[in-house]
Amino acid sequence: MTMQVQISPKTRLTPDGADGTYQSLAEEYQKVRSFSEYLCEPLVTEDYVIQSMPDVSPTKWHLAHTSWFFETFVLAPTVSEYRSLHPQYTYLFNSYYNSVGDKHCRAKRGLISRPTVEETYQYRAYVDEQMLTLLEAIDAEQLAALAPVITIGLHHEQQHQELMLTDIKHVFSSNPLLPAYRERVDVRGVSVPSLHWGAFTEGISWIGHAGGGFAYDNEGPRHRQFLQPFQLASRLVTNREYREFMEDGGYQRPELWLSAGWNTVQQNQWTAPFYWEQRHGRWYNMTLSGLREVDDGEPVCHVSYYEADAYARWADARLPTEAEWEVASMTVPLEGNFVERGLYHPAPLDNSSADGSLQQMFGDVWQWTQSPYTPYPGYKPARGALGEYNGKFMCNQYVLRGGSCATARSHIRRTYRNFFQPEAQWQFMGIRLAKDV
Amino acid sequence: MTMQVQISPKTRLTPDGADGTYQSLAEEYQKVRSFSEYLCEPLVTEDYVIQSMPDVSPTKWHLAHTSWFFETFVLAPTVSEYRSLHPQYTYLFNSYYNSVGDKHCRAKRGLISRPTVEETYQYRAYVDEQMLTLLEAIDAEQLAALAPVITIGLHHEQQHQELMLTDIKHVFSSNPLLPAYRERVDVRGVSVPSLHWGAFTEGISWIGHAGGGFAYDNEGPRHRQFLQPFQLASRLVTNREYREFMEDGGYQRPELWLSAGWNTVQQNQWTAPFYWEQRHGRWYNMTLSGLREVDDGEPVCHVSYYEADAYARWADARLPTEAEWEVASMTVPLEGNFVERGLYHPAPLDNSSADGSLQQMFGDVWQWTQSPYTPYPGYKPARGALGEYNGKFMCNQYVLRGGSCATARSHIRRTYRNFFQPEAQWQFMGIRLAKDV
Amino acid sequence: MTMQVQISPKTRLTPDGADGTYQSLAEEYQKVRSFSEYLCEPLVTEDYVIQSMPDVSPTKWHLAHTSWFFETFVLAPTVSEYRSLHPQYTYLFNSYYNSVGDKHCRAKRGLISRPTVEETYQYRAYVDEQMLTLLEAIDAEQLAALAPVITIGLHHEQQHQELMLTDIKHVFSSNPLLPAYRERVDVRGVSVPSLHWGAFTEGISWIGHAGGGFAYDNEGPRHRQFLQPFQLASRLVTNREYREFMEDGGYQRPELWLSAGWNTVQQNQWTAPFYWEQRHGRWYNMTLSGLREVDDGEPVCHVSYYEADAYARWADARLPTEAEWEVASMTVPLEGNFVERGLYHPAPLDNSSADGSLQQMFGDVWQWTQSPYTPYPGYKPARGALGEYNGKFMCNQYVLRGGSCATARSHIRRTYRNFFQPEAQWQFMGIRLAKDV
Amino acid sequence: MTMQVQISPKTRLTPDGADGTYQSLAEEYQKVRSFSEYLCEPLVTEDYVIQSMPDVSPTKWHLAHTSWFFETFVLAPTVSEYRSLHPQYTYLFNSYYNSVGDKHCRAKRGLISRPTVEETYQYRAYVDEQMLTLLEAIDAEQLAALAPVITIGLHHEQQHQELMLTDIKHVFSSNPLLPAYRERVDVRGVSVPSLHWGAFTEGISWIGHAGGGFAYDNEGPRHRQFLQPFQLASRLVTNREYREFMEDGGYQRPELWLSAGWNTVQQNQWTAPFYWEQRHGRWYNMTLSGLREVDDGEPVCHVSYYEADAYARWADARLPTEAEWEVASMTVPLEGNFVERGLYHPAPLDNSSADGSLQQMFGDVWQWTQSPYTPYPGYKPARGALGEYNGKFMCNQYVLRGGSCATARSHIRRTYRNFFQPEAQWQFMGIRLAKDV
Repeated sequence: MTMQVQISPKTRLTPDGADGTYQSLAEEYQKVRSFSEYLCEPLVTEDYVIQSMPDVSPTKWHLAHTSWFFETFVLAPTVSEYRSLHPQYTYLFNSYYNSVGDKHCRAKRGLISRPTVEETYQYRAYVDEQMLTLLEAIDAEQLAALAPVITIGLHHEQQHQELMLTDIKHVFSSNPLLPAYRERVDVRGVSVPSLHWGAFTEGISWIGHAGGGFAYDNEGPRHRQFLQPFQLASRLVTNREYREFMEDGGYQRPELWLSAGWNTVQQNQWTAPFYWEQRHGRWYNMTLSGLREVDDGEPVCHVSYYEADAYARWADARLPTEAEWEVASMTVPLEGNFVERGLYHPAPLDNSSADGSLQQMFGDVWQWTQSPYTPYPGYKPARGALGEYNGKFMCNQYVLRGGSCATARSHIRRTYRNFFQPEAQWQFMGIRLAKDV
Repeated sequence: MTMQVQISPKTRLTPDGADGTYQSLAEEYQKVRSFSEYLCEPLVTEDYVIQSMPDVSPTKWHLAHTSWFFETFVLAPTVSEYRSLHPQYTYLFNSYYNSVGDKHCRAKRGLISRPTVEETYQYRAYVDEQMLTLLEAIDAEQLAALAPVITIGLHHEQQHQELMLTDIKHVFSSNPLLPAYRERVDVRGVSVPSLHWGAFTEGISWIGHAGGGFAYDNEGPRHRQFLQPFQLASRLVTNREYREFMEDGGYQRPELWLSAGWNTVQQNQWTAPFYWEQRHGRWYNMTLSGLREVDDGEPVCHVSYYEADAYARWADARLPTEAEWEVASMTVPLEGNFVERGLYHPAPLDNSSADGSLQQMFGDVWQWTQSPYTPYPGYKPARGALGEYNGKFMCNQYVLRGGSCATARSHIRRTYRNFFQPEAQWQFMGIRLAKDV
Repeated sequence: MTMQVQISPKTRLTPDGADGTYQSLAEEYQKVRSFSEYLCEPLVTEDYVIQSMPDVSPTKWHLAHTSWFFETFVLAPTVSEYRSLHPQYTYLFNSYYNSVGDKHCRAKRGLISRPTVEETYQYRAYVDEQMLTLLEAIDAEQLAALAPVITIGLHHEQQHQELMLTDIKHVFSSNPLLPAYRERVDVRGVSVPSLHWGAFTEGISWIGHAGGGFAYDNEGPRHRQFLQPFQLASRLVTNREYREFMEDGGYQRPELWLSAGWNTVQQNQWTAPFYWEQRHGRWYNMTLSGLREVDDGEPVCHVSYYEADAYARWADARLPTEAEWEVASMTVPLEGNFVERGLYHPAPLDNSSADGSLQQMFGDVWQWTQSPYTPYPGYKPARGALGEYNGKFMCNQYVLRGGSCATARSHIRRTYRNFFQPEAQWQFMGIRLAKDV
Repeated sequence: MTMQVQISPKTRLTPDGADGTYQSLAEEYQKVRSFSEYLCEPLVTEDYVIQSMPDVSPTKWHLAHTSWFFETFVLAPTVSEYRSLHPQYTYLFNSYYNSVGDKHCRAKRGLISRPTVEETYQYRAYVDEQMLTLLEAIDAEQLAALAPVITIGLHHEQQHQELMLTDIKHVFSSNPLLPAYRERVDVRGVSVPSLHWGAFTEGISWIGHAGGGFAYDNEGPRHRQFLQPFQLASRLVTNREYREFMEDGGYQRPELWLSAGWNTVQQNQWTAPFYWEQRHGRWYNMTLSGLREVDDGEPVCHVSYYEADAYARWADARLPTEAEWEVASMTVPLEGNFVERGLYHPAPLDNSSADGSLQQMFGDVWQWTQSPYTPYPGYKPARGALGEYNGKFMCNQYVLRGGSCATARSHIRRTYRNFFQPEAQWQFMGIRLAKDV
């Protein structure tokens, strides 16, 4: 991963990079690291161990892997005679960095009872102590050299914080007892504003990260694209709207679906978004606050690309491209229902907020775009292991934009490119429509 | 499951049934139940949760399921207005009793973090309290009616005690850290006595349980079989002998194998017994005391029926039938290396013990016989759910005899029929040879 | 495969071996070989090529493999400088003889368009010419040496004749056009005699082939078994009776099934015998004469062991053991609806034929026994490749007795042991009931 | 599928559309249809039946399906009381048009022996007769209405002609006898010109089909794209160059591969292009003229997107985008080694032909681009069944450009977009490199 920015030591080192306030890297490090542990507070020991499908990792593994990242990419190359807490942790907690060495099979992360949860926290504490000692010891020049990779490590940890939430949701949903992660205040919306279309004109636009703050390598190089005129929906698709699609035979009509999507629907017998189930004629969905009746006003969530695409076709619209989304996002402030709000669930749009501008562009749910995840023109991954961070996944995935209710506010950018396979559903994923003019 | 015996209340109620000493059912209940908890002492919370393959159950599940058994077959039908501790435990902890209702999918037992380990122990305590209250309350006639099913419940729990050990061994072996369950004293044998053959003459023999003590329904009816003359090996096959087979190309020569066995060898790339691995040119095996170098004198263990059969063919011998084994077992006392000895591993035979009689007939490892698991002539499973205990598994499995180092001494009988698929390896399974005359 | 008999040259060399009439081996060879070709007369070139499931082989392959057998086990070891018609036929047409060399993957037999059908017939003609030249040339001593393996080759070919019929039936059933193999005269039975029970007393019986004619090695050694008293049904179970089982929820009631059987029913969504389908509320079954309405009076056919076992349990009976069947078969002549009759389908029992003796013991459908396919006491497969003929399949299969409407009369014996996996359905397999006294 | 052009009857109706010569639609129909049959001349009946993997269709099926296309989309809607030759052909020969009705499972096309090859040719003849009668009977207005769909039908048949060649190649390669389809003259190249780079400047380009002749709907709408400056290799990558990649550990170095590509390499144990095998230390490849030693000068062929992408990374280059390729293709005439040349294999580039311009842009091998197959801005599939032709496959596939040695010259266009999954290898697929400036 190449850094897009020149970093002056002790300045502009926040993962956010947007507000520009001064904050020492050590403080930022502690803030991000402790937020991971805050997210684990509702869990009991047993919850940390389980991998409910190959895409899911045990919470324990997330906690260890994010520590391994700092150990492998900061401490080991920097601290002379650095010793890991355990000789096999390197093997156990590598995710996909082939350059770093062999790794434990991803699908078997749930078979490891030891190290225990307590030992995992000891491993975190050990790494933190080493990291803070290091940051204390080095001079400005050394800090300037290390800051980029530490900053990546913090953004990396924020990504895993989001996965911790989506993964524990899947774990809990696999338990017939359907436990709740955290109770929450109800925010049922009585009236969602009606959808209107924002218009954008044709022309050459600059896309991608411009420097001036942190960004992943896949957000650049900044470059020009020619865009046709297009329209973008003023808000996300709601559960009520999605249910109309279902009731109109959405899951039974092959003409609405991509061929691969239709095969997936039939093989998995999909009839509704993931986590939805019908009980006594009413729809419920599993949430991080337990099983709840589906709220009509909430943005629809946990739909795959296939479902988003089929819904758009049914609605006589389409999904936006990622360039369209990025251009449109410039018109609104970067704010929304992020993880800090503590809902852990998308929220209905408040009618009173409708002022003609685009709503819900950030937070709530990741918005599927119709853009396959490809390298931007001139993209080059970094040399070395961190070059494996993004580039090698640029195949058979689609880009999502905007962040979700499980994303940290300081983690997201307008240029941020998330990506998942078109059949993935377990992230907080939803739909915003676009149209040709 | 039909009981083979008439039980007088307060008499002869031990799971053993063999020694005939008086012991109250309540005492026996407490003894067996607490032994399950004793076996869990070395475990940490995380260990209880994991299912490392579909055949394995989490320790937590074993603890709950054995309690569910008493709840379902004793408390619920007997205690008026009995309430389970949780309405869904019936669903979660049913193993395979279709008559009792729906059940949680076997392969998903490892996805359940709640109830927690602590709650599982509370569930056990709740069932125990109810059971002991019941036993206190009832009169002799009622006890006589309940004793058979309680006795089955205790034997059932002993079977699960053995599975708890073999399953946690598999769980630990799936962890690259290879944790140890319990340290143990070394009992390496310097010299194993040479093998000789015991001779048995032809004729009609009575086979099966004769009454007078507890037995499973599959051990009866007692009946006659005509046996040809045969010879039985004086002791189990050792690791040293099995290694000669390996070094003679045993796993590369299709002519030594059953066709289905050869397919299994090739698909799974078997080259040694389960749990064996080669490091730096030497053979090690995973044990409940961690990874240890293979001891030449120990009985070979964790071999499938296919391997036992191929070894026998290589050795110009065969496996015994279960009838031959049962007849031969009458010549020696029922004693051996059982779970109470605390080794949790088969032990080398002490040379000094060789007196010409059959050795190692009980304990150490279950001995594969060449007999498919079929009903004895006149066998009828009981009406009701307990009829599902044995009969419905009489297909594509082979009978094993004699118990193992993970079996309770009080659980085993000469007529006891254990059974597994021919490819199973994760139990303590080994080889005794037989020959035609 | 060891021969059970001493053969005098030019005498008693028929595959039957039972009638004792004189016939030269060459004549018998020609008779059996030409019958294979007679069975192919209704086929067009395209029919010969297809493998509709891994268990099925293309007709072309059967024709070539049976020729390969003579080439490999008679010509190559006997004729000096024998050359096969093509250097790769040895590889292509070996079925499962590991000792003979590498072989083409069984599941890929349907991917071979060349050699063509015409070339395959040329291969047969080439082998026949070589064989007949050989038989002409040798003296009585040499003939005595070769006769056993040639006789096996002829029985082997008869086995493949039966498979050619059952396999082409499966091929045709996989085609939505449902072609007919041969039209046939209708033999619908108006009234099937009611079932009664023949009684047999307990005692020691001799089982297995006694010598005096050809037998496979798995039919011996002849030996003693102790049988309990038993009863055997006077005739086969009919379609009408089997439909009562279906209408009584037979396929929905787990308590009627072996555990492995119930899993198979659910995974494959079985609701009726193989080849049955419902159209407009009536049951039809695919036959070698095309799709026909199910005839109530015919013996039920194409049921697995699991279905036969479940039916028997529902009928409050059981399947016979193979020893019981063999003992009972001595009471009736060896005659029935064999392949020579040209029906290629089981026939309803004619009421007038009911004279109190056992009916339909031979021909019509192979009768599942409850006996797993195991070696008889003292069984030893031959040294060399022909030792792979039988013994290595003695695992996870059940014995069937009596032959079927696709078996040659001269191929069957009272001691004949056929065997298939308990889930197999595509052979002509049916049910005869037994009972304890 | 919408037609991009206004067609005047009797004018400009050729599938080519490029040369503008007059040719009646009936003549064109006969020319294309008879070419399918010409391609089948080397086949024997058995060859037509086989489906060697799910992606492959039997030749017989291709011949019938292309006839079904005219029957379904021209004859049935036009000719009053049109009757198909057989009521079930509609079901058997539908490929993927859900709107037209149920269809036979793709993976089971190789299980159908009837209709026979002869009957399939009768079906073709029947359709041809009906089509020609129709074309004779209609007036200019009716012809104008039908011409677009007939023209699609002819292009559709040309696509299947290419598949017939690639599929029969796979069928023959599945046969250990490795039959040859057609012998061919050898065109081994002694010296391939060295590779140089053509330079292209940045700017807005028009992409897509401009009207004026036939095109598939996915080639439009014509639209603008902004391109960065780029360089394009003057010729295709050769076998010699690809072998350098192999010898440099190309298939063993994960850093060269996309993550999904590396998984595919490991699962399938790829070590060379498809159809390559090593014998006695030399590389051979299966061709339509049988097994031949790999020719260093030929363009590398039968490589997946993953291999093309890894090769480019190893060569410090990248694959072109489809827009780059299309823009560059304007600089050279549309000519090359197409199917009419009769090689059925890519040919080495003749050194004498090197004049500084781009070589091998058309024919030889389809050239992988780095562009996922997505809709062009404003793309709308047609209403009705032909709308299923292209659009529903726009997911998880990559675009290939330029045609191959199995493509008809009259079928290809500069704007032509072929597409396959990144793991596909069995088409004639190769590599042209590009570079950033």
